[in-house]
Amino acid sequence: MTRILPPDVSEAAFDAALDEFRALLGPEWVLSAEAELEPFRDPFPTTNDQSFAPGAVVSPSTPEEVQEIVRIANRFKVPLSPVSTGKNLGYGGAAPRLAGAVVVNTGARMTSIIEVNEKYAYALVEPGVTYFDLYNYIQEKGYKLWLDVPDLGWGSVVGNTLDRGVGYTPYGDHLMWQTGMEVVLPDGDLLRTGMGSMPGSNAWQLFPYGFGPNPDGLFTQSNFGIVTKMGIALMPEPPGALSYLITFDNESDLPAIIDTMLPMRIGMAPLQNVPVLRNIVLDAGVVSKRSEWHDGVGPIPPEAIDRMKKDLDLGYWNFYGTVYGPPEQTELFAGMIRDAFLQIPGARFHTTDSRPEAGDRGAHVLHDRHKINRGIPSIDEAKLFEWVPNGGHIGFSPVSAPDGNDAWKQYEMVRDRCNDFNKDYAAQFIIGLREMHHICLFLYDTAQPSQRDDLLKLTSVLIDDAAAEGYGEYRTHLALMDQVMGTFNYNDGALLRFHERIKDALDPQSIMAPGKSGIWGSRFKDRGF
Amino acid sequence: MTRILPPDVSEAAFDAALDEFRALLGPEWVLSAEAELEPFRDPFPTTNDQSFAPGAVVSPSTPEEVQEIVRIANRFKVPLSPVSTGKNLGYGGAAPRLAGAVVVNTGARMTSIIEVNEKYAYALVEPGVTYFDLYNYIQEKGYKLWLDVPDLGWGSVVGNTLDRGVGYTPYGDHLMWQTGMEVVLPDGDLLRTGMGSMPGSNAWQLFPYGFGPNPDGLFTQSNFGIVTKMGIALMPEPPGALSYLITFDNESDLPAIIDTMLPMRIGMAPLQNVPVLRNIVLDAGVVSKRSEWHDGVGPIPPEAIDRMKKDLDLGYWNFYGTVYGPPEQTELFAGMIRDAFLQIPGARFHTTDSRPEAGDRGAHVLHDRHKINRGIPSIDEAKLFEWVPNGGHIGFSPVSAPDGNDAWKQYEMVRDRCNDFNKDYAAQFIIGLREMHHICLFLYDTAQPSQRDDLLKLTSVLIDDAAAEGYGEYRTHLALMDQVMGTFNYNDGALLRFHERIKDALDPQSIMAPGKSGIWGSRFKDRGF
Repeated sequence: MTRILPPDVSEAAFDAALDEFRALLGPEWVLSAEAELEPFRDPFPTTNDQSFAPGAVVSPSTPEEVQEIVRIANRFKVPLSPVSTGKNLGYGGAAPRLAGAVVVNTGARMTSIIEVNEKYAYALVEPGVTYFDLYNYIQEKGYKLWLDVPDLGWGSVVGNTLDRGVGYTPYGDHLMWQTGMEVVLPDGDLLRTGMGSMPGSNAWQLFPYGFGPNPDGLFTQSNFGIVTKMGIALMPEPPGALSYLITFDNESDLPAIIDTMLPMRIGMAPLQNVPVLRNIVLDAGVVSKRSEWHDGVGPIPPEAIDRMKKDLDLGYWNFYGTVYGPPEQTELFAGMIRDAFLQIPGARFHTTDSRPEAGDRGAHVLHDRHKINRGIPSIDEAKLFEWVPNGGHIGFSPVSAPDGNDAWKQYEMVRDRCNDFNKDYAAQFIIGLREMHHICLFLYDTAQPSQRDDLLKLTSVLIDDAAAEGYGEYRTHLALMDQVMGTFNYNDGALLRFHERIKDALDPQSIMAPGKSGIWGSRFKDRGF
Repeated sequence: MTRILPPDVSEAAFDAALDEFRALLGPEWVLSAEAELEPFRDPFPTTNDQSFAPGAVVSPSTPEEVQEIVRIANRFKVPLSPVSTGKNLGYGGAAPRLAGAVVVNTGARMTSIIEVNEKYAYALVEPGVTYFDLYNYIQEKGYKLWLDVPDLGWGSVVGNTLDRGVGYTPYGDHLMWQTGMEVVLPDGDLLRTGMGSMPGSNAWQLFPYGFGPNPDGLFTQSNFGIVTKMGIALMPEPPGALSYLITFDNESDLPAIIDTMLPMRIGMAPLQNVPVLRNIVLDAGVVSKRSEWHDGVGPIPPEAIDRMKKDLDLGYWNFYGTVYGPPEQTELFAGMIRDAFLQIPGARFHTTDSRPEAGDRGAHVLHDRHKINRGIPSIDEAKLFEWVPNGGHIGFSPVSAPDGNDAWKQYEMVRDRCNDFNKDYAAQFIIGLREMHHICLFLYDTAQPSQRDDLLKLTSVLIDDAAAEGYGEYRTHLALMDQVMGTFNYNDGALLRFHERIKDALDPQSIMAPGKSGIWGSRFKDRGF
């Protein structure tokens, strides 16, 4: 295979940079052979070419090494692509946006849990620390603290937060609970935000704002720096937790479910956590293969959906949540939630007690959510990738007001397009505090070029469909970043103009993750990117 | 008096700019006569010169006019100083950091409450909307929504949030509950953040992050733009609220109070809101004049403090809070709080019922907090300005971990310096979620040049004392911004270097509030600022 290089870097310059990286890190921490680069390609390819292939991978062990890597990159104009664990598989994994960029893999060696403070309930970690790592550490120490975890716990706490990932306890908005960063800037300078800029402060992980402009949000979904340390608030362990599942029979129940939910959520009680509403295909995907239900092309026919509902004892829509507190409170809150939703005809209320896991495949997701909603990391949801052979997915995730009409409009929009493309509709609505994310997982056979093409086309069409209705994605796959940023085009693209100015100021040679979130910098814009 | 002009702008250029402002806005919205400028000077002067005197004041009525003002300013290199209501009196009021700058007074005419949404519990407002305005609007409409208000309700909702002000309900961290901005950038471009960049989105005030880097924090305590619209989440009205006061007899109780408080606060129950711990002088200041207790120079002697405690039936430290929910919950939570604090010898528990306001001066603050903690704006706290003749104050407000030892160290530090400078120690500790703000109000006779000098010197000395212990201010007076930013000097001032790069990129002529938070831009740095 031809060697992949950045578009405007000579092989000689690239090799000279690699030599300097080797001198800095030792040769074992600089990868450039094709086989070594494999884990840093898009794990679920959406194109049939090398659009997102890395040129090399370097693995620093300290912020100082990261600074030096950035300085070397500037000398040779070699684009970098920082990644922590790269486990956001549906959005490109560890792959760079720009082919040939050098992946800065902070996940390999920057794996220190610098501090977990039980009294003040926070952790300070490096980017290679996974949810499992931090969870295990807290358990070993016996701290009465919970860690909010995303659906899959294998990824980085820092990486998830920087990509604005979410979890499902009251600490589900990870950026909201972020408490200060250390960042290597594109010129190699080392910044600490908030009280981290005050030498000797004991409040770096306690007061996120510090003095003057607060830049932390700038380093999320961005290419303005490499975060080398981050604080995150932890949740004091509540006295108890009760998880429930409410099943709804009909697709058409969707608007009523959302509209019943909102008043209970907006005051943070009785719905204290981030509830999820999953369709039957998504639930079935975790405990079965598609071939069990249907062998032909998609979408799965209504008859098979009915079999799923019956066999798994689930509804077309399945609502999962957890209430927290002493037993009197969890019972009170669960009762309020049950009574409200059971107004919807056919709705049924289940708990982990009424649906023990043994021998009940349909109860599996409930028990998995019960773990996740109590801050216990899990990777069960990854079984979705076995739904089809060589299974993968990419995410399509529009955001709107948490309104029944919007949910229905989005559902019809995506379902109809799925029908056009012979894809199964597998999705969940996640209700944060006041907004709704509609997370659609398009599962496909990653080994089939035609499925890749279809998948990318379907998602791209939906991005435009959604934008026409005012629905915007909260994140997207590498291949679609330009398109999505293009839909956030108020005042003829003022947001991107703003980001490009900051990009050029902080990173005049655009060596830091060019193209991330659609931000390229003049160097690449001038070349037509 | 000599006319005040920016340091490097000719009188001809300045007048030409004023002519264009008049043509744009109409002459009545451009003020330049000395008497007209008076409300835009520092209301509590800290210097005996014209350091913070405005050159003129312009009052736009639309974002488009703000854009045009910025373009005119760029043409004539005339520095601007945006202000909403300018009511943060202890930090400089409406005055510009740079003498001669033209105040852009968005508070005069940009007073629209664009939307209050009861279903989704938010408001979208212009910068001239005060807490009283928004509160009254909500009351008129009969919405079941609470607005989190700061100590004094006369100021701007937008301005308070941009200065990172706080309130005292569970929505007390105003920036955390900010939900998207519209900003005129220093080049006149108009940006909307978050979902505001997605045309037609119904989630601008619901999902603050949008797609790509999240810049909102950059526009707080900053000079990177003029915010012309902002969303703020409102709190669904809880079923009830119970306010209490716990009095503690001795100065030396401070560490025990803080250490008792933390475990009840960190899990957001039973201390659901931001509690405040005020010393007796601060409470006495709201209901009496200093001369009632002591006539001589400061600090007030122990004997007078004892009289205050006795006459007002208060402790040396007085802890105010509110619990929210149905009666069973408020009684449960209040009982838990009472039982915990009454472990401290001499502590006494009071409620609005046990201390009716009529005939009990010492109960006044409790009843005022009961209003504020239920989202009802008040200006009673402004009576502090009558403590001494021509009374004013400036704030000194270091941040630390919420630890008894830190509280005591800070208390001794400030008290001893107050003694050195013959000032009264009047202060409160405000406990946010995990951090502690020690808000010291230095009350002084603003008409006396020697008191101004002393005041500024005392505060300046304390900023350095505090920084030596790792305590940094969360905001400060105009006169001390350079000094405070200088203490946030990790890595030889990396934070300020970062901000200066962004400043030069967004505002190459540094026309936007030069000097705010210590950020000047190259134009003024090159001139020695």
